[in-house]
Amino acid sequence: MNLYQQLIKDYNQELTHSGVNGERLASRLEELSVIGLMVSGGVTRPGYSAEEKEAKELVIKWMKNAGLTVTSDGAGNVFGRLAGKTEGPSIASGSHVDSVPNGGHFDGPLGVLSALEVAESWKETGYIPEKPYEVVIFSDEEGSRFKSSLTGSRAFMGQLRPEELDSLRDENGKSFRDVLNEYGSSAEECLKAGENRPEIETFVEVHIEQGKVLERENQPVGVVKGIAGPASLEVTFTGEAGHAGNTPMAGRKDPLVAASLFVAAIENFPKQVSDTAVATVGKLNVHPNGFNVIAQKVILTVDIRDIFEESRDQLLDQIKTNAVKIAEERSIGVQMKLNAKIKPLPINESLQAGIAESLGKFNINPVYIPSGAGHDTMIVGTEMPAAMLFVRSRDGISHNPQEWTSLNDCVYGVHVLKDFVEGLMKKQ
Amino acid sequence: MNLYQQLIKDYNQELTHSGVNGERLASRLEELSVIGLMVSGGVTRPGYSAEEKEAKELVIKWMKNAGLTVTSDGAGNVFGRLAGKTEGPSIASGSHVDSVPNGGHFDGPLGVLSALEVAESWKETGYIPEKPYEVVIFSDEEGSRFKSSLTGSRAFMGQLRPEELDSLRDENGKSFRDVLNEYGSSAEECLKAGENRPEIETFVEVHIEQGKVLERENQPVGVVKGIAGPASLEVTFTGEAGHAGNTPMAGRKDPLVAASLFVAAIENFPKQVSDTAVATVGKLNVHPNGFNVIAQKVILTVDIRDIFEESRDQLLDQIKTNAVKIAEERSIGVQMKLNAKIKPLPINESLQAGIAESLGKFNINPVYIPSGAGHDTMIVGTEMPAAMLFVRSRDGISHNPQEWTSLNDCVYGVHVLKDFVEGLMKKQ
Repeated sequence: MNLYQQLIKDYNQELTHSGVNGERLASRLEELSVIGLMVSGGVTRPGYSAEEKEAKELVIKWMKNAGLTVTSDGAGNVFGRLAGKTEGPSIASGSHVDSVPNGGHFDGPLGVLSALEVAESWKETGYIPEKPYEVVIFSDEEGSRFKSSLTGSRAFMGQLRPEELDSLRDENGKSFRDVLNEYGSSAEECLKAGENRPEIETFVEVHIEQGKVLERENQPVGVVKGIAGPASLEVTFTGEAGHAGNTPMAGRKDPLVAASLFVAAIENFPKQVSDTAVATVGKLNVHPNGFNVIAQKVILTVDIRDIFEESRDQLLDQIKTNAVKIAEERSIGVQMKLNAKIKPLPINESLQAGIAESLGKFNINPVYIPSGAGHDTMIVGTEMPAAMLFVRSRDGISHNPQEWTSLNDCVYGVHVLKDFVEGLMKKQ
Repeated sequence: MNLYQQLIKDYNQELTHSGVNGERLASRLEELSVIGLMVSGGVTRPGYSAEEKEAKELVIKWMKNAGLTVTSDGAGNVFGRLAGKTEGPSIASGSHVDSVPNGGHFDGPLGVLSALEVAESWKETGYIPEKPYEVVIFSDEEGSRFKSSLTGSRAFMGQLRPEELDSLRDENGKSFRDVLNEYGSSAEECLKAGENRPEIETFVEVHIEQGKVLERENQPVGVVKGIAGPASLEVTFTGEAGHAGNTPMAGRKDPLVAASLFVAAIENFPKQVSDTAVATVGKLNVHPNGFNVIAQKVILTVDIRDIFEESRDQLLDQIKTNAVKIAEERSIGVQMKLNAKIKPLPINESLQAGIAESLGKFNINPVYIPSGAGHDTMIVGTEMPAAMLFVRSRDGISHNPQEWTSLNDCVYGVHVLKDFVEGLMKKQ
């Protein structure tokens, strides 16, 4: 059974109204799901890969059919613009179409297709918005290829540093600069993405919750009250390789033992700084990774987050101190590199109130949720009004083939977005 | 500077005495080193390759010049026999001339040439041994071509299984059977190698240490007290993937934390069972290995060795028990698979004492070293008395172009071997 068939199974057809079409949304989620599809049922569409590009091109085709004027910038961000009755700054909505390795089918695509579905609904009903409307696809939100993240939105906001483009390398040693060239852009064009960006009055993003709060509260859609800022710390432990059989235990300098002590200790730190802080090692590579060779080097990445900047930074410091302590105790080399450090974003309270009002029209009780995950909204929101709505995730599972949001919940998300955006269109 | 020039540079000419000739040994190491020589300075002579064959033919020429009668068996093992004053079982010594890809010039050749140098010394001094003496080259000790190992010695001992010859394929898909045909033998002849094998009273092998014990103890030659049999345990921890930002710390099922606790604990186990036991995790893979994804699964391999089977198996059990304990405590799944389990060979204590006695004559303090790596002696020793001496390796580096043993140390090895073998010749 493909994604469309799974989605449509439990769909309440009555949700298809006012130009919003659940079947169309399901069929587009399905079409995107096969780009980078894996036998696991998950999807792998790294930022700036052929798969991400193919997904963008498919959405561009739909954008054009919906009457949007499509442009893109040097970071590969895509903008589908609908003219309003008046000129001036737009109301914009969107998300991303890249994924983590073996990820799910909703994280990203739902936000892009929801924004597009609002434009489709207007086309069907003949509604012409007061202000211009912009459907946005940001590139490389997950950052899985370069262990960075939010690349497109950071470029869009002029927050990408040239040093980053030079230093980042993918697993095959290819530089970000080369990847951009292959992608049909360049580092220079990417850094200039922010210069002529379309003027936006308010940005709003629909995204799956990737947590269990809405499920627990039994509501399809909720209001995001703030976004935790991630810090991404790359740690390299360097020891002394040797034959696993001929090197006595005493005197070994095994970097994998040091890395293991480091990883095992991390889970105890977050609760010391805050209730909402988290720290995770999800990526770890051993070199040379031979079963009968003591490792020479271990490279791992620690993902550290909190919705408060102060406690997040305190946690980062504790973890760095512990890496140094373990390395010193074992005469192991340690190097650390901060791949990313992003400020948490509190969401504007009047925008939260506006979403709550739209939720009320669909008899949804407003639930206010802090987002542990970073989103493009976090970046866009540093300089302009930005809001987010979360759609319920089954079991809170995400970044996984099991990621699931019912079509009913997805369509509720579109209706709420549409109502909220129409409200923003009317505002002076 | 070629290998001969490098070796001779620091050579103490006074070590050339009693018919043992350091210059000859150096020149032969040099002549072998150019067969399969690479630009890296390392050598590639896979088992049953044209290079291994050429190396054997060169040694055969030297054997014949030294007055040895040369035969070979269906596994390509070579025997250079010197008649003794009496008939009966021989004292045998040798090693191999194949190498790992881009390997060094001492691992294997030193053992063969040391055994040959003993025969040369007798020829020069007119010494006639009591019993027959046999210089042996075993085929394909490293097993790099078929990811097997110890092929020649296993065939010699009748331990090669016909299924293995049928199933093994090299990287080009060529079967072991075909390779044997091209080599001028056949699978049938190879399997029959053990049937008419020369009767051996005691086998002794000279080999570089491939470790740092002799270097640390500042002795040129040492006594191998046993050859560790490796057990290779593959452990898979399976948890629950999730978003690194949106999954609260409490209730996580992170298999990388479980694996880290497991790896960190391993270094404490070997000393609990034996002084010579070692356990190493050198290979560990995280899935999906995304920096912002809690891992779903971690697969690692534990290499467990000791020279005593009982303590090795005890260590294996402790490690397995700990994996289960950690997994249960954290509601993490664990699966284990034993990829290999080879019997260790403890060396006969009277043979160790005999080597120590010979070492004493050269003012070398006997250092007793467990061999972590497997050797032909491990196979031969399963059915007949067998001993080994180790020669000091610089920095313990091996299976690498940097592998190095000084000519002085090599020649000390020959003198000790000669004395020890002469002692065995006199024994009733």
